[in-house]
Amino acid sequence: MPVVGMVGAGQLARMTAQAAIGLGATFRVLAGSAAESAAQVTHDVVVGSHLSLPDVAAFAAGCDVVTFDHEHVPGAVLTVLESSGVLVRPGSGALRFTQDKLAMRERLAELGVPCPRYAPVSSAADVVSFCDGSWRVVLKAVRGGYDGKGVWVCSSAAEAAGVLGHGIPLFAEEFVPFRRELAALVARSPSGQGAAYPVVQTVQADGICREVIAPAPGLDAELAELAQARALRIAAALGVTGLLAVELFETAASGLLVNELAMRPHNSGHWTIEGARTSQFEQHLRAVLDLPLGSCSPVSPPGAFTVMANLLGGTDLDIYDRYTHVMASDPAIKVHFYGKEVRLGRKIGHVTAVGAPGQEPAAVRDRARRAASYLRWGTEDGD
Amino acid sequence: MPVVGMVGAGQLARMTAQAAIGLGATFRVLAGSAAESAAQVTHDVVVGSHLSLPDVAAFAAGCDVVTFDHEHVPGAVLTVLESSGVLVRPGSGALRFTQDKLAMRERLAELGVPCPRYAPVSSAADVVSFCDGSWRVVLKAVRGGYDGKGVWVCSSAAEAAGVLGHGIPLFAEEFVPFRRELAALVARSPSGQGAAYPVVQTVQADGICREVIAPAPGLDAELAELAQARALRIAAALGVTGLLAVELFETAASGLLVNELAMRPHNSGHWTIEGARTSQFEQHLRAVLDLPLGSCSPVSPPGAFTVMANLLGGTDLDIYDRYTHVMASDPAIKVHFYGKEVRLGRKIGHVTAVGAPGQEPAAVRDRARRAASYLRWGTEDGD
Repeated sequence: MPVVGMVGAGQLARMTAQAAIGLGATFRVLAGSAAESAAQVTHDVVVGSHLSLPDVAAFAAGCDVVTFDHEHVPGAVLTVLESSGVLVRPGSGALRFTQDKLAMRERLAELGVPCPRYAPVSSAADVVSFCDGSWRVVLKAVRGGYDGKGVWVCSSAAEAAGVLGHGIPLFAEEFVPFRRELAALVARSPSGQGAAYPVVQTVQADGICREVIAPAPGLDAELAELAQARALRIAAALGVTGLLAVELFETAASGLLVNELAMRPHNSGHWTIEGARTSQFEQHLRAVLDLPLGSCSPVSPPGAFTVMANLLGGTDLDIYDRYTHVMASDPAIKVHFYGKEVRLGRKIGHVTAVGAPGQEPAAVRDRARRAASYLRWGTEDGD
Repeated sequence: MPVVGMVGAGQLARMTAQAAIGLGATFRVLAGSAAESAAQVTHDVVVGSHLSLPDVAAFAAGCDVVTFDHEHVPGAVLTVLESSGVLVRPGSGALRFTQDKLAMRERLAELGVPCPRYAPVSSAADVVSFCDGSWRVVLKAVRGGYDGKGVWVCSSAAEAAGVLGHGIPLFAEEFVPFRRELAALVARSPSGQGAAYPVVQTVQADGICREVIAPAPGLDAELAELAQARALRIAAALGVTGLLAVELFETAASGLLVNELAMRPHNSGHWTIEGARTSQFEQHLRAVLDLPLGSCSPVSPPGAFTVMANLLGGTDLDIYDRYTHVMASDPAIKVHFYGKEVRLGRKIGHVTAVGAPGQEPAAVRDRARRAASYLRWGTEDGD
């Protein structure tokens, strides 16, 4: 049985560990510490730094294929691994587009993929010129942003100047007054096989994903197909192996603009654990192992929705006892805890509600929200 | 988060480990060796003997609740644990009915539960007298049997004498010319909550379960309810906490006779991983943790069948490469490997096919069988 090594031991690695058990592949994580989410539940844990070439190389030496829980392994480390013959999936050539958002924008522009208008900026004057009088504008860090970090919406030159004061490489993007946010999750194997999950709607607050509704309610079928096809095309053009999540803005004109890319299991795909024939975590493993991809079909018949709500930390540290209420109140809801210490606003788990055919998305959202709110605040009416 | 300790590290513990990851409970196994199925994938592994009081007591000391992958922990060990305050679920009072099949028969008879006619035997003359001229007869070991071991179907006094020659405690049972075999799987929590899965059909060969069809095709709805109610009643009467699997014979007269009991996740419930809202492994954990039980509903609408086929070892030791064929041929089929060395006839995994509504059970069985056969023999037409 092959050994799959995942660099990083957050909740994505934790849920991948779960999927690996069924597949019979040996799963190993490189964790920053033994206390990390995936390190708590994985049999083979190596403690080391994903920034250190010796640590990553030693980890990779025992693996048949290496993949990632996040996009923070330096490109230089990846290329050394590759040149020494390690199977790195996705490879450095693909991953750099998640590490350098400006390079991603430039590559997508070359491919003719519709994106928000953008430009590199290095001064407040650049930002003012980019805006041409129409504020607001989005400033993004070229490197290192996630979950709303590294993204600033600015309404004035003074605000922009403040962000520029951080002294990090930035680019400007037009502020898109989107109708809603969507995500297209696809998988691509080294053999070139592709598979696309139903397009979902994501609901964000303060840059953090709060809810995912699968499939996106009321999404025009042609637009959904377009989103899937575009994601598959990007995956092929960028040489992605494993999962590719494409975060999209749906605009008032029913256009689709690419917001972000991720090349790993993605928060917008957690619903697949219960809601799809093949979970995104199993799919990622199949893809990086170059096994045939699994069915992305929902387990529920058409007209049924699955809703995932992220569970954020509240102010109480021990929330296990709230299980009793949530489980008694909704015996079909699924709670996933990541084994993380509760901190206000931190993603510490998620809940999934699979709806019945014909049940309104609002009713399914309500189930998921009530459970997440109770676990967070001890009341169903919280946030 | 509570710590659940499972004594035994076979495939049932392996799949329970998988379920524990989502629940956020800490899961620990007591394994006979580090190579055992669950020991390969569980973070917290204690190596020791389930027959040794010091080993089991040391293991239990670090757990909030102790449960079991099998029924082979001696009753004397269990009662010592209980008297020292360990939460043992199911408890020794319930487990003894899975360890002593004659006691089980006697207790079920007291409860008025229909069973095959039985009697203790200690000589060939006893067997001849029990049969009263109508061979065949079933001889069963009072202790230690499973998967067809400890069960002998005898067609003559000479055969019976041969079995008696083993010198182990036996009892005789009438040979039931059943129409088919069914299984009713229920859960019961220490608070007394009960939950029942749909009744399934099991297909055995040589005493080993080969296939499970959920729900049992064409089963009369009243008979199904009766089977569920009877299983819940037995669970309550025997004080079971956790899962109880009741293996049943459906007779030509549409009667139901109890064949065997198991108080743990059961082969007849593996289909629930993909086929039910709550897998039997999650349900067992919820029950032993005294959390509210999960929904036992199938994920598919009425009229859809889920089929599980056991994967037995063939003659080739490395079967991982056959994945490619099986996964390519049926992208929706799920293969579970237990991490066990291939040995001819050994249960080394299972496959699950979830059918579409209206799809004939035979078609779903065919999918599962073809996959299991290919993995075993390299051909879809094997056994």
